[in-house]
Amino acid sequence: MPHRPTVTLTTDFGTNDHYVGAMKGVILDITPDAQIVDISHAVQAFDVLDGALAISQTYSYFPNGTVHVVVVDPGVGTARRGVAVAAGECILVGPDNGLLSWAVAALGGATAACQLTNGELWLHPVSPTFHGRDIFTPVAAHLAAGTSLEAAGTLIDVTELVTLPAPTSRVHDGEAEGEVMSIDRFGNVQLSIAATDADRLGLGFGSPVIIRCGRRRLTVPYLETFAAVAPGEIVAYTDSAGLISLAVNGGDAAEQLGLPPGAHVRLSAALPA
Amino acid sequence: MPHRPTVTLTTDFGTNDHYVGAMKGVILDITPDAQIVDISHAVQAFDVLDGALAISQTYSYFPNGTVHVVVVDPGVGTARRGVAVAAGECILVGPDNGLLSWAVAALGGATAACQLTNGELWLHPVSPTFHGRDIFTPVAAHLAAGTSLEAAGTLIDVTELVTLPAPTSRVHDGEAEGEVMSIDRFGNVQLSIAATDADRLGLGFGSPVIIRCGRRRLTVPYLETFAAVAPGEIVAYTDSAGLISLAVNGGDAAEQLGLPPGAHVRLSAALPA
Amino acid sequence: MPHRPTVTLTTDFGTNDHYVGAMKGVILDITPDAQIVDISHAVQAFDVLDGALAISQTYSYFPNGTVHVVVVDPGVGTARRGVAVAAGECILVGPDNGLLSWAVAALGGATAACQLTNGELWLHPVSPTFHGRDIFTPVAAHLAAGTSLEAAGTLIDVTELVTLPAPTSRVHDGEAEGEVMSIDRFGNVQLSIAATDADRLGLGFGSPVIIRCGRRRLTVPYLETFAAVAPGEIVAYTDSAGLISLAVNGGDAAEQLGLPPGAHVRLSAALPA
Repeated sequence: MPHRPTVTLTTDFGTNDHYVGAMKGVILDITPDAQIVDISHAVQAFDVLDGALAISQTYSYFPNGTVHVVVVDPGVGTARRGVAVAAGECILVGPDNGLLSWAVAALGGATAACQLTNGELWLHPVSPTFHGRDIFTPVAAHLAAGTSLEAAGTLIDVTELVTLPAPTSRVHDGEAEGEVMSIDRFGNVQLSIAATDADRLGLGFGSPVIIRCGRRRLTVPYLETFAAVAPGEIVAYTDSAGLISLAVNGGDAAEQLGLPPGAHVRLSAALPA
Repeated sequence: MPHRPTVTLTTDFGTNDHYVGAMKGVILDITPDAQIVDISHAVQAFDVLDGALAISQTYSYFPNGTVHVVVVDPGVGTARRGVAVAAGECILVGPDNGLLSWAVAALGGATAACQLTNGELWLHPVSPTFHGRDIFTPVAAHLAAGTSLEAAGTLIDVTELVTLPAPTSRVHDGEAEGEVMSIDRFGNVQLSIAATDADRLGLGFGSPVIIRCGRRRLTVPYLETFAAVAPGEIVAYTDSAGLISLAVNGGDAAEQLGLPPGAHVRLSAALPA
Repeated sequence: MPHRPTVTLTTDFGTNDHYVGAMKGVILDITPDAQIVDISHAVQAFDVLDGALAISQTYSYFPNGTVHVVVVDPGVGTARRGVAVAAGECILVGPDNGLLSWAVAALGGATAACQLTNGELWLHPVSPTFHGRDIFTPVAAHLAAGTSLEAAGTLIDVTELVTLPAPTSRVHDGEAEGEVMSIDRFGNVQLSIAATDADRLGLGFGSPVIIRCGRRRLTVPYLETFAAVAPGEIVAYTDSAGLISLAVNGGDAAEQLGLPPGAHVRLSAALPA
């Protein structure tokens, strides 16, 4: 069975206003049989990194051919350009401010990209403050229905796309160094340290791990899941994105540890392997 | 390609409870191939004006034939009637308490309307407190699938429909007078003053504009987008609904200016044109 | 017309993170024409009873054949098993921790159940902390597309399924005794006392009813809808789930009465019938 045209939406628009509803209307008016999926509209307002993270950890679960609209756009209406980027088996559409770059990198790099210059695909008049509705979603709806990248605008050199620096993450001297990537609803603290790096430190499930952040130092077990410790206890585990995360079983690790996004964290094995 | 039956939902039910989920089940049970789109479920509780605003600024983005269910219904279960109203190329369904009236006016007026009296289309037993689930959505699902307005109830004179007063907005003596319509997630303050009225005041992009509210008076630039001023600065701009809005680039204008919905505001050109 | 494969989602994941988006991608990758409906993602974190309530009051509105994914899973990654349960004309999928049991009971009991053991239907590698994405939704997508229960795992004796105790509710000595089931967005307080029990107490619409909770005792009217009393007044009514609820017209009854979920409440007729 051919996949239905699928368009996902990731924005910082929230769901209290009717902005997202308008975007969905635009998509259905162009591509009536589109499947529209909300990835998140709770990206921190104007936080391009937070948006880059959301799409980079989610795109891989969608069918081939999915078009992902991603809009966190503090520069809307200024000179920053809009782009559509083909990577892997999907297309990403949004402002060229780095927002798409982590997903594109995870997809193995862009295979083609265009600057959105074909105004025939847009809604007019274009609001200078809502390109999400007037440019990105109509273009995405056309792309999902089979319009080519070339028809959406001018092809550009993929090396010219704006990229965000990768999150800090390195292993040296028996220590993994990283930062807090995100805090989820449960207060779980996701680090930029991959589980594969834990292996290189000699950490295995069941090992105690030393966590250093600022002047604090604590030793917690490294286990397969937060549910493996008693309620209220802290645990390090491999989360669903393949990264080391810290949790309190039944509690809020971010609050208990006082770790905000961006905080610097180091991990090491409690006993040299 | 014929458009799929499309039903939108705009309510004050929130998304924490399972009310909206039940409504969607009802629609799919009647019209399995319906496209269901949430416009907003965060209308202020019992606030008919806020609901009227949400649907009036969104309906136009949907395909012809869309049926819009709008439920903000403080009088549910009392004598207020339920209606379906045809206007433009869409149908609106909800309580006849004025909620639909701004959208209907924007659509050029109702072309037909019926009081929902055909109980054969409803879910039984009808809950006196949840007509959204038991009357409005099943009727909308039938209408989206092609049932005629006549089959949903008794045709009524469209002039009998309850209407809300239009938001205050007038231009006189070189001043535009209006009120705060809404505050969005970003703290942007939407006024009831149309951009076309700004033209009549001699305002053009780049002009300074004087804003008066209560005893306060401030002069800000009138520009195409909030991103055109430095971070932290106040700006007036034409928003995505064609209305004058006030923003703080990267900040929260409603908080900074202390302007709640309904506040009275006057605008004029800083230099007589 | 055959119903489209329909999958509902009820979780405690919230909508701020991108967990739910990933689950939807998984479903569409397996069953591209699925209708996916959110029932709620605002179940109280780790609160199995709250999740059991949400699905038990909603499943009945969906088309026959719907597959309901329900994930409130404090024991994820531990020995608790995953199950798919056939009951009535639908299938429920989730952890076997009692979460599904109220809906199953309301559906007249399970007709068949399987432990999810067929890893061929899962996403690999399976995250020990996100069976919602890697086990429950892919299995549900297959079941919605027509895969049999037998193909999803090992059939088990339905009497072995974990069940939650039913909410307290009994009528004796002219009094109905129950507990607060839930509080909705409007502050309406839903009790575990069925409207049919009110009949047995001799209560009819228009009767005054005595409410006792802790040392408090108040007498309020029992009416068809909260809109039947003056703004600010307390009322008992039959809610949209057929249970007695307490509301303040235009206000927040839970706050005004200080009644949290689980609070013990007794009702009786103010005048013996």
